[in-house]
Amino acid sequence: MGSTQVPLGEYIFRRLYSLGIRHIFGVPGDFNLNLLDHIDSVDGLSWIGTRNELNGAYAADGYARCRGLPGVLVTTYGVGELSAINGIGGAFTEYVPLIHIVGMTPRYAQEARLMIHHCPGEGLSHKLYTTVSEPLSAATAILDDDASFTQKVDYVIESCFKTKLPVYLYIPIDTPDIMVDASRLQISLDISIANPGKEGLEDEIVQKIIASLNAAQKPAFLIDLLTRRFGLAPDVQEILRLTGLPGFVTPLGKSIVDETSENFGGLYVGAITPDTNVKDAVESSDLVIYVGRFPTDSNTAGWSQKLATSGTLIVLHPKYVSLGDKTWEAVSFVPIVKKLLEQLRKGSITKKDTYIKPNKISVPQFSEKLHGPLRQKSFWDCFAPFLRDGDCVIAEVGTSQYATFELQLPGKADYHTQLFYSCIGFSVGLALGALVARKEMGLTGRVVLFVGDGSLQLTVQEISTMIHLGFKPLIFIINNSGYTVERVIHGPSRKYNDIDPWNFQYLLPFFGGTPENSNFHSVGTYEQLLPLLKDKDFASTNRIQVVECLLDRYDSPQLMTTLVDLGAAGKAKVLEKLDKEAGRTRVKLDGTLTESGLSTE
Amino acid sequence: MGSTQVPLGEYIFRRLYSLGIRHIFGVPGDFNLNLLDHIDSVDGLSWIGTRNELNGAYAADGYARCRGLPGVLVTTYGVGELSAINGIGGAFTEYVPLIHIVGMTPRYAQEARLMIHHCPGEGLSHKLYTTVSEPLSAATAILDDDASFTQKVDYVIESCFKTKLPVYLYIPIDTPDIMVDASRLQISLDISIANPGKEGLEDEIVQKIIASLNAAQKPAFLIDLLTRRFGLAPDVQEILRLTGLPGFVTPLGKSIVDETSENFGGLYVGAITPDTNVKDAVESSDLVIYVGRFPTDSNTAGWSQKLATSGTLIVLHPKYVSLGDKTWEAVSFVPIVKKLLEQLRKGSITKKDTYIKPNKISVPQFSEKLHGPLRQKSFWDCFAPFLRDGDCVIAEVGTSQYATFELQLPGKADYHTQLFYSCIGFSVGLALGALVARKEMGLTGRVVLFVGDGSLQLTVQEISTMIHLGFKPLIFIINNSGYTVERVIHGPSRKYNDIDPWNFQYLLPFFGGTPENSNFHSVGTYEQLLPLLKDKDFASTNRIQVVECLLDRYDSPQLMTTLVDLGAAGKAKVLEKLDKEAGRTRVKLDGTLTESGLSTE
Repeated sequence: MGSTQVPLGEYIFRRLYSLGIRHIFGVPGDFNLNLLDHIDSVDGLSWIGTRNELNGAYAADGYARCRGLPGVLVTTYGVGELSAINGIGGAFTEYVPLIHIVGMTPRYAQEARLMIHHCPGEGLSHKLYTTVSEPLSAATAILDDDASFTQKVDYVIESCFKTKLPVYLYIPIDTPDIMVDASRLQISLDISIANPGKEGLEDEIVQKIIASLNAAQKPAFLIDLLTRRFGLAPDVQEILRLTGLPGFVTPLGKSIVDETSENFGGLYVGAITPDTNVKDAVESSDLVIYVGRFPTDSNTAGWSQKLATSGTLIVLHPKYVSLGDKTWEAVSFVPIVKKLLEQLRKGSITKKDTYIKPNKISVPQFSEKLHGPLRQKSFWDCFAPFLRDGDCVIAEVGTSQYATFELQLPGKADYHTQLFYSCIGFSVGLALGALVARKEMGLTGRVVLFVGDGSLQLTVQEISTMIHLGFKPLIFIINNSGYTVERVIHGPSRKYNDIDPWNFQYLLPFFGGTPENSNFHSVGTYEQLLPLLKDKDFASTNRIQVVECLLDRYDSPQLMTTLVDLGAAGKAKVLEKLDKEAGRTRVKLDGTLTESGLSTE
Repeated sequence: MGSTQVPLGEYIFRRLYSLGIRHIFGVPGDFNLNLLDHIDSVDGLSWIGTRNELNGAYAADGYARCRGLPGVLVTTYGVGELSAINGIGGAFTEYVPLIHIVGMTPRYAQEARLMIHHCPGEGLSHKLYTTVSEPLSAATAILDDDASFTQKVDYVIESCFKTKLPVYLYIPIDTPDIMVDASRLQISLDISIANPGKEGLEDEIVQKIIASLNAAQKPAFLIDLLTRRFGLAPDVQEILRLTGLPGFVTPLGKSIVDETSENFGGLYVGAITPDTNVKDAVESSDLVIYVGRFPTDSNTAGWSQKLATSGTLIVLHPKYVSLGDKTWEAVSFVPIVKKLLEQLRKGSITKKDTYIKPNKISVPQFSEKLHGPLRQKSFWDCFAPFLRDGDCVIAEVGTSQYATFELQLPGKADYHTQLFYSCIGFSVGLALGALVARKEMGLTGRVVLFVGDGSLQLTVQEISTMIHLGFKPLIFIINNSGYTVERVIHGPSRKYNDIDPWNFQYLLPFFGGTPENSNFHSVGTYEQLLPLLKDKDFASTNRIQVVECLLDRYDSPQLMTTLVDLGAAGKAKVLEKLDKEAGRTRVKLDGTLTESGLSTE
């Protein structure tokens, strides 16, 4: 009369499935093969093998960004987990929940410190690699004790949901087939985010926010990355609708507010905000409610935001809430935003005529005036009329991301880029993860990837996975013969900023594309690009399409070059402040620094 | 009258140049660009940009393996260094000296904990990533203090030479242009390996070895990996020549002893030694001098070596020396081998008629009997007659490496594989590093790479670098439609062991190959393969050549399948020993373990 049992491996995958996860990414290795077998035991859960582990981590990260659930990555001991760790670093820095499951040497071999392949060396602990990953992980569990198997599994999954950070689960190869109590699967995990014992404080803060809103003449919301990461995008959109207040976005907040909605205020990037009306509106607001603040160099144009300088600034953040001069530490914004919405639904504030009215967005049209070679200045304007409701735009680090911050998105669009960690090559794996996530979610909009030729070289093989899984993204390769973003920063004519030229016409055929499922185009002029974008067959995504766009090696988007200049100015300010605090006198500024707020390698 | 000064960046690169290093590998990033400028200041030192950082680490590792000098890798902060870390792991586990130079955020930004792109997160120390790399590094220095710049640089370089392990040099971006005292460059670094204060003990050990040699009837040398890593290959070859004794090699010792020399005993892999005569010779020897021992699972066929069971075993190792029951800890074998050679040059031993006489090696010939589809059993025999004196063979993890352990090498050949760390995909970067190192060394033999289709998917883009640098390796792709080594281990028909099929005919054109500088062949039968190998134009390496070899997905080399079986047997033994020690009774063996000594993911 024992309770029902399942193998440990199956327990793990059943848990993940029960939370909504339908795909697992990774690369097989001899220390995880018998774990992978258990994926097949869970109906509706599928394995996606990626070309290498780093791309697998990027894909799991992309899945998490789009899906709002943890991405799951399985790698093998040592060689696999360490290949993936840069992807974990990106997730750690940008609050992306990832569950990294690592197949490990068997426990008896760990005990005997056997010098098995993949191990760190003669006489060394097999757990050495866990010390490598720990600084980038919110929780790590090694399943080395039968008595705590399921508790540990549940613990790391819960930690992942609560922190929105990567977690590690190390599974010795002798454990996935061990039977564990299945009844525990009936108990739901605690994946909610709360401020235990601080419910009264939450109410108090919500009342203060409402009072501030009622007192202000020109309140505004500024929406940033962590709003999306903590699943609050729908709540914030609803708050905007109920209040009639404008929602401005930072670069990393792009697409959290629907750009076709009446409440969309525009893109605010501090001193380099492209639209002066938007800049004036944000900076003249007497109450700014800054939701999900993520104050990185590039996201704030070198910390040049000017918010509520003569009014009240409210910051809602996963780790603190502040209102004017008052800060409450260790208070998560999640329950606060939820309670605020609840109060607003009860009609707690009264709209005023003084509210900021965002600019009306016009319907974008293809320009008929563009001729000759493609130029950064006007190239990107061709895509606003091309995009459709529900499309997902993915922008690689560097040129593509700076240019697309200004790209006007259609309704219900999704937009993703990695501006803080800024790892070149990431967008290709991100696109794969997005395709998988969107398929799970039943979203039919297209995935449009913009990636530079320099970045693409790092991770190109993952396009193969897209082809073979039958995905049909549109991939625009911005071919400017090397690392143009770096040319802007330093050494414009140095050889190290050049790359090997590739013949992109062979990309799809090499990776298994056929004329039936894939197509390639190369365009160097507007006369070539515009007819393609207007072509219905091209736009229909009945095939995977790669479009090589030839641009000049020294041509770059305005926002990017401005940011580099601003970085130099910002640096002087920081130095001055530090010197003042330390009572130092600085003799000279060193010449070639480039901590410009520019987000690229 | 101040002393001459040079910028810190130039100091570093002058140091590296003075030690013989001529090429630096890596990927540019905005935190290392102004460091890279200083490479150009050193005549004769060149930058090799790789397609991504992991491949760069593999290439630097391959360079070090072939060159006998540290490989140098430059990456950027966070995104770059972490992408490379799996390559550092491989170097750490297999005693490969690497100097990993990481461009870092400027010191003022570290002090202020600015949330600059690539950084770990809000309020976190910029030095977080150094804690990630430290477990895999023999020495780490952050150049954050002007007073110790050059001392720290010299310290990590010396550590690298002495330990043959990876070291890290973190260079904040505000430091490469700071002027430092150049006169220090006149002082040579201490890169020698000694046993300070133990010179008398060294002499005593050498005398004991010589006495053992004089007492033995059938002495033999067994040469292993660390002999090569610590630069002792020429010394050991000379010892064999002087003594007339046979030198047997482990798999990882392959090519340390010239296989055409009279002293070459053959390949010894414990219980699965392919040639029974070799096995008997080694195991019947009454004195085995085991030089550079590296006792990993695969290198010893699951620790099944039987050495001097009724005689004397001498082990010479970087960290200890043992003779029979006596072990001296913390004694490096380097001075001992050097002194032993010195003594032997003085004629300290007398050769005996009882010495083992190795089998005569016959000159390999192309078989005329092979017909029909390629089979693992005879496929590899086609390459011994194809190889030429001075060729360098590189074998990828899995099928290629197990098969080529048995491949008879020509004279002065070089052979490299990664059997312990066993990271799939490594061989492509290794081949690039080998090409660069061999060019520096003026070696004219060909580089012949054997790589499986599964492994190639991880790192394929590095072939582009070979093309664009004008290298002309011969690349044989063992296409068996997936991870066959894993199929042998577990889940032969599971989907996770399949990969996306690629059309290899487009590989070279995609990466920029032209008919003038590249060529592709696909062979599925001996009727196709043999004429190609006999073709003089093909063999001349006037172009980079890729040959796709079609083999069955379930066909694998005998040595590999035997090792898997042996792994299961070895496991039972280890369990029994551990249980005995712990006084435990084991109820059952779990079924599907695969810690088989098999070296693959």
